[in-house]
Amino acid sequence: MKTQSQVLVKKFGGTSVGSIERIEAVADRVLADMKAGQKPIVVASAMSGETNRLVRLANDVDPFYRGPAYDMLVASGEQVSIALLAIALEKRGAKAVPLLAYQLGIQTDAIFSKARITAVNSEKLLGYVHRGEIPIVAGFQGVTEGDQITTLGRGGSDTTAVALAAAVQSEACEIYTDVPAVYSADPRLVPKAREIPVLSFEEMMEMASLGSKVLHFRSVELAAKYRVKIHLRSTFETRDGTWVVPEGDKMETPVVSSITHDAATVVLKLFPVPFGPGFLAELFEALAEKGVVVDIITQSHNEDGQRVAFSVRDEDLNSAVTVVKQMVGNKTSIVQMEKMAKLSAVGVGMANHPGVAARFFRVLEKQKVPIHLVTTSDIKISAVIDQTNLGEAAKALHAEFGLDRE
Amino acid sequence: MKTQSQVLVKKFGGTSVGSIERIEAVADRVLADMKAGQKPIVVASAMSGETNRLVRLANDVDPFYRGPAYDMLVASGEQVSIALLAIALEKRGAKAVPLLAYQLGIQTDAIFSKARITAVNSEKLLGYVHRGEIPIVAGFQGVTEGDQITTLGRGGSDTTAVALAAAVQSEACEIYTDVPAVYSADPRLVPKAREIPVLSFEEMMEMASLGSKVLHFRSVELAAKYRVKIHLRSTFETRDGTWVVPEGDKMETPVVSSITHDAATVVLKLFPVPFGPGFLAELFEALAEKGVVVDIITQSHNEDGQRVAFSVRDEDLNSAVTVVKQMVGNKTSIVQMEKMAKLSAVGVGMANHPGVAARFFRVLEKQKVPIHLVTTSDIKISAVIDQTNLGEAAKALHAEFGLDRE
Repeated sequence: MKTQSQVLVKKFGGTSVGSIERIEAVADRVLADMKAGQKPIVVASAMSGETNRLVRLANDVDPFYRGPAYDMLVASGEQVSIALLAIALEKRGAKAVPLLAYQLGIQTDAIFSKARITAVNSEKLLGYVHRGEIPIVAGFQGVTEGDQITTLGRGGSDTTAVALAAAVQSEACEIYTDVPAVYSADPRLVPKAREIPVLSFEEMMEMASLGSKVLHFRSVELAAKYRVKIHLRSTFETRDGTWVVPEGDKMETPVVSSITHDAATVVLKLFPVPFGPGFLAELFEALAEKGVVVDIITQSHNEDGQRVAFSVRDEDLNSAVTVVKQMVGNKTSIVQMEKMAKLSAVGVGMANHPGVAARFFRVLEKQKVPIHLVTTSDIKISAVIDQTNLGEAAKALHAEFGLDRE
Repeated sequence: MKTQSQVLVKKFGGTSVGSIERIEAVADRVLADMKAGQKPIVVASAMSGETNRLVRLANDVDPFYRGPAYDMLVASGEQVSIALLAIALEKRGAKAVPLLAYQLGIQTDAIFSKARITAVNSEKLLGYVHRGEIPIVAGFQGVTEGDQITTLGRGGSDTTAVALAAAVQSEACEIYTDVPAVYSADPRLVPKAREIPVLSFEEMMEMASLGSKVLHFRSVELAAKYRVKIHLRSTFETRDGTWVVPEGDKMETPVVSSITHDAATVVLKLFPVPFGPGFLAELFEALAEKGVVVDIITQSHNEDGQRVAFSVRDEDLNSAVTVVKQMVGNKTSIVQMEKMAKLSAVGVGMANHPGVAARFFRVLEKQKVPIHLVTTSDIKISAVIDQTNLGEAAKALHAEFGLDRE
């Protein structure tokens, strides 16, 4: 069935609608696409900085409150940007319809601040499209069955766009942003990094969870579930960016498709701690209760006692240390290793190519880079190293796996 | 029927919710009132400056567009303030429910930017109150039958508050603002001005249309229609302010209750213009088409020809002159009298006390104040004079009618 084939969901992020000039440019672009035969459905984020401003206001009143009023507050940013974009399109003679979640019927559960979309009124949405109108949908927001406004958490507008694309069987979900594509590594770290033309959902999910900020994990997960192809591209250029597609659709599968990193990492090492899994369960429960996200965990023990090491994000260091101190006696030494970074190689090809881990470690050894923690999955290998070694190690790995731009 | 007797609608204006500190103070006040036995329904405006910021954004895109997207845009300001106020109340242990127009069912017609309320779901609203919850309603906004957001025009939050008060048969509608009461004259102009404890709806409507900015005309008109008593008072003090009530409820009716003025007035005098009402009809139609609000009109004629003079607001002067020049030949002289002011005496007692006009003119004559235009109604008399004479004339009239504070 190809009836919906020209319907295309286009999501514009905060920087793409960050000023009146940029909103005007988005309007021009959407109209040009329409003239070329597309039937656009637009999703917009709040103007850049606006959601943070609203969150600050809420925190100024009560940093602990999260509930319906908070979601109503932070959802107002998208209301402003979609209205402005609609006005810009109307000025150009188009018929644009700004749509909030309650108007379009973007239903979610009632988990405020982290709601999940349960249904979208695709008929209503396609109705606008078929009448030649341009629906401009507020990203990031939904409504509960009781008509309360919810928000979808970080990256929520991407999730909205993917959900709409799935609901209307859009050819693809275009995510417009301020970078032209996903890179094989951060170009500031690895000057020879290049744009990746095609990625699989699995790779993109790994990259999202490893610190790449281009797409949020949940939106990729949703795209994978409904097999919605994502086309990530620049608002300021017309050429193609990166396609994120089901694995089978990828023509070539390099062993490693990207080197990613997350520099905001610290490692805590505890020795000795009580033997057995009981202590570990208690420790990680207590950390979770305080909202500390623990990433890599290693454990070992010998006759001297049990050793535990784990990594957390910079901003969680103090909370983590407080929790640990309450749980261990003064015979346990707590070593804080700050200014760490997690460096990873990601690629679906890895699963079928043994020896990637060996090549990864060999490179680090040649560079004389000490490794503090390691974790692996089918399609990625990660090591925590000192931040001072990050640049050279990333460049060496990027070259080793054939990713350098010619 | 007195079942609703403790239900009290409280409307807080932009300055009352203009900062986090003020929002916290409003929350304290509402809770204190609840402890004293009241069942509050709160209506809030946008934080001061916010609506202007949103209007500027819209105008930056297209100063001529007015329609659904514009109303959606400017309505977002109230969404922020009611959410913040709800969070502040929740922090204090209360159960507060922020409500947008679509959630509460504040129905309006589809005249965007100037919509009129057609229905309010009072049962739903009272449901919250009876469960011990505090409804926090977004002022200024409504929804059409097709679920589009509308706004109610200037002073729209006052109108929302009065409409809710009428719908739930609230004892009164409290309008909280940054002044403690309505004054018998502008205290900056007349230092002996005093607070007016009680005004009739008719007086308040005249004052609103004569330039008093305390309450907007439409909200008073609505209050008069449904006989909703308005209590205008300060957010920063607990004592009573000014009650606006049906005429019969007023204990004493002074002949003149206030001296009001509007300093942004200009007069245009045309002579000679074509005889007869045909020219006047065309002239004022053409002015209305350009959005020029004409206030006082006088006309006279003798053998030399017909004379017309009328007053408009400062900001409309250029448009008015353009229209006039297109309609008259070069034999007609156009005299622009700038820096004029309209000075008025208002009072329901006037209707039953002949001679008020005579006293009014006698005072101006003693002050040697030339009068350029005059208009009267049952309960007011207005004269356009030079701005340079405004202060002395206002003080003299204020004294003449026994309004000076002892």
